[in-house]
Amino acid sequence: MIKHKFWTTFRFFLFLFILPSLIFAQFNFHTIDYYKETADRILESSLGERVGYKWLKELCEIGPRLSGSPESYEAIKWAELKFNEMDCDSIWLQPIIVPHWVRGDTEVAIVRNSKEFEGKKLSIAALGGSIGTVGDGIQGKVMEVHSFEELKLRANEAEGKIIFFNRPFNKTISSTFRAYGDAVEQRTYGAIEAAKYGGVAAIVRSVTSKPDNVPHVGAMKYVDSLINVPSVAIGVKDADWLSKAVKDDPNLEIQLILSCVNLDEIESYNVIGEIRGTEYPNEIIVVGGHFDSWDKGCGAHDDGAPCIQTMEVLDLIKRLDLKPKRTIRCVLFINEENGLRGGLGYGNYADSNESEYHLAAIESDRGALIPRGFTTDADSTTIEYLHDWLPILNKTKIDWIRKGGTGADISRIKTARALFGFVPDDQRYFDFHHSDNDTFESVNAREMQFGTAAITLMAYLLSEEGLK
Amino acid sequence: MIKHKFWTTFRFFLFLFILPSLIFAQFNFHTIDYYKETADRILESSLGERVGYKWLKELCEIGPRLSGSPESYEAIKWAELKFNEMDCDSIWLQPIIVPHWVRGDTEVAIVRNSKEFEGKKLSIAALGGSIGTVGDGIQGKVMEVHSFEELKLRANEAEGKIIFFNRPFNKTISSTFRAYGDAVEQRTYGAIEAAKYGGVAAIVRSVTSKPDNVPHVGAMKYVDSLINVPSVAIGVKDADWLSKAVKDDPNLEIQLILSCVNLDEIESYNVIGEIRGTEYPNEIIVVGGHFDSWDKGCGAHDDGAPCIQTMEVLDLIKRLDLKPKRTIRCVLFINEENGLRGGLGYGNYADSNESEYHLAAIESDRGALIPRGFTTDADSTTIEYLHDWLPILNKTKIDWIRKGGTGADISRIKTARALFGFVPDDQRYFDFHHSDNDTFESVNAREMQFGTAAITLMAYLLSEEGLK
Repeated sequence: MIKHKFWTTFRFFLFLFILPSLIFAQFNFHTIDYYKETADRILESSLGERVGYKWLKELCEIGPRLSGSPESYEAIKWAELKFNEMDCDSIWLQPIIVPHWVRGDTEVAIVRNSKEFEGKKLSIAALGGSIGTVGDGIQGKVMEVHSFEELKLRANEAEGKIIFFNRPFNKTISSTFRAYGDAVEQRTYGAIEAAKYGGVAAIVRSVTSKPDNVPHVGAMKYVDSLINVPSVAIGVKDADWLSKAVKDDPNLEIQLILSCVNLDEIESYNVIGEIRGTEYPNEIIVVGGHFDSWDKGCGAHDDGAPCIQTMEVLDLIKRLDLKPKRTIRCVLFINEENGLRGGLGYGNYADSNESEYHLAAIESDRGALIPRGFTTDADSTTIEYLHDWLPILNKTKIDWIRKGGTGADISRIKTARALFGFVPDDQRYFDFHHSDNDTFESVNAREMQFGTAAITLMAYLLSEEGLK
Repeated sequence: MIKHKFWTTFRFFLFLFILPSLIFAQFNFHTIDYYKETADRILESSLGERVGYKWLKELCEIGPRLSGSPESYEAIKWAELKFNEMDCDSIWLQPIIVPHWVRGDTEVAIVRNSKEFEGKKLSIAALGGSIGTVGDGIQGKVMEVHSFEELKLRANEAEGKIIFFNRPFNKTISSTFRAYGDAVEQRTYGAIEAAKYGGVAAIVRSVTSKPDNVPHVGAMKYVDSLINVPSVAIGVKDADWLSKAVKDDPNLEIQLILSCVNLDEIESYNVIGEIRGTEYPNEIIVVGGHFDSWDKGCGAHDDGAPCIQTMEVLDLIKRLDLKPKRTIRCVLFINEENGLRGGLGYGNYADSNESEYHLAAIESDRGALIPRGFTTDADSTTIEYLHDWLPILNKTKIDWIRKGGTGADISRIKTARALFGFVPDDQRYFDFHHSDNDTFESVNAREMQFGTAAITLMAYLLSEEGLK
């Protein structure tokens, strides 16, 4: 009867170990039902308590957070306090040296040498990093172009002129990020191209999907080999007006007076808080965004709310007592907008710290609109593996995981196993981006809190399941 | 050598007919590349020309379109003109008898019998179909309840009171349509339940996701067996205020004065325009929405812009010279909000007209927000077949096709082979719905025009490919 006993024992072990392992083969430990139930709990808490949305109100009351500004330091203290209040396992400030540009009190563009419009003020704002003007500022006729190629072809007309780069945001392009990319070189390199042909300043049509008159600012560059000329953004309505006005009256001039100035670089900080992993504390999953903003509006969509989404990841994990296996670390990077110093600094730290392994990083820097998916730099096998998570992630409106760009700051963590970009819908993002439109009121609580839930769930799945 | 010749001929025919038919097996005639290219053309034209968005401005200038109102007739003429301007193959008005309720000039809710708040006016609006008041209106103490069950349990307190239904929109529910469904019975049946226990009127917390003070109206019902009492919606902030006030001062009363009145039923119209199919003119694909709205805001999201999306389907097909195989018919249904008479009337017409076969109908009645997918009543085999279209539909932000509810109006076409509901994102919809928030400005041009492209592409694919 030994044989019979063997079979009984074998079937017992089959029942005890092998069948459950087949059932749970898709997932490392927890069942898919557990994850779906956890997704429901995360979403319910995120939508119901709106912790992040309340934090956003506080952050917006501090003001915009340009690197080196008093408000940026106040915001850094505020974030550190939040990490303390949620009782993170570790909290630290990573010192980062950042550029320090200040807009100052005066920036005007006034129509001159025009019978009809003498003295008319245009809606402009200096681009970040632009030099200011002295005395009565700079005055010149206006040369309108729509591309650098056109400027090159008409180079002989440029001397002494204010170059007006008026290529519009192409509304027929499906992705607003691609439409932005299509037009933004005017803003980034306009001052260089203007100077190259003897232009005395650059006026750049705001790179925005919203046809109002609010100037949308952003970074611009100089090169040492050319004279630095001031560069400003102009509201779309005034860009259209100016385009017509200089056709009607080619002698029309613009006087530009700008008080902006580049000061000495200054110490600032990445703000970091984490919940230590219970099983693999040295395996790190970073969630984060850039904590600096431009000095317009309050940087609610770019990148206040997205930063707060990643801060609330830790708070949600605490609130729901989830105890992740791996360490989940929120990094609020300083100075993405005009230097990327925070991303570079954290990347150096991560890549040189041999006691830690960065399994993954998720960046949120596309506004706080309704979730659509995640992009990743992972290979196709990993993406295939991640697709098994979609029935869970769907609950937070994540419909896909695709190959694609992830995020400027996390891209500097060269040793990370996989990087992810959180992708909300993008159709309204450039209505707000880098402008006075980017206010607390422009963020919808439900859309923001759905994003919080999506990022929390993705970070938690990565923590529990790892990457194959 | 005959054998050899046979093989040559056979291989020639193999090359000529069989291989291409295998390549094109997925699609009836056009290639997938043709459809992708067509999708790009549709999207580019929709986003670039924004024809529908311009029409929406015109429609909103006419005003809201409650069935039987002068504005509704003006809008019907406007739509007929648009179908004429785009040179539809057929245009007709289908007569429909509709209810005729008028709000009138006076609607006030004033706090009485309160030292502190005597004379305070609350932000209210009569619900559609409510009776008005006579003389000095109705005055009574307030009984707050959160459910019909609670009212039943406390029935002995209700006599002579104004019943205040204050169950909030449950913000933890992921789908706003489900959250709406969870709370809206108060609005629909509040007056009946109030009357059942001796209440003299109903005040209903606005069923909305937006915590402002704008009343959100909608349909309400009476039964012949009970006395009819007035019923009004109250803004969320004032609902919260009233809830606190009646706890602090149980003697506080509300005086309600309403001039609204139900007039005799009146003739109105469904507006119909179509482009005749080149191959199967008797096979019909309906696209449409309800052309009436509540008398608040201008009914931009509900259902002006969605109607216009389906009108622009025809215009886009004309603009791009697509010549669909099947007939694509736009039906603007009257009176969905307070009767569904247009849907019933068209359904009767469709089901009794033996010369036509309704292959499919697509309804757009969930706002003009960014597309997410289509729901359908088709069986799982058909849905599986439709999934082959997703790589094309993806271009217009359609990420899925799922089993689900389709639309109130098209659901009356009982003989249709398959019904589809266009599903944009729903997170902001109930911020606007049935209120003064539902304005032209609340519609984002890009989001609306993406929806137009999605519906156009779906209708065109149905026209060209049919349903397996």
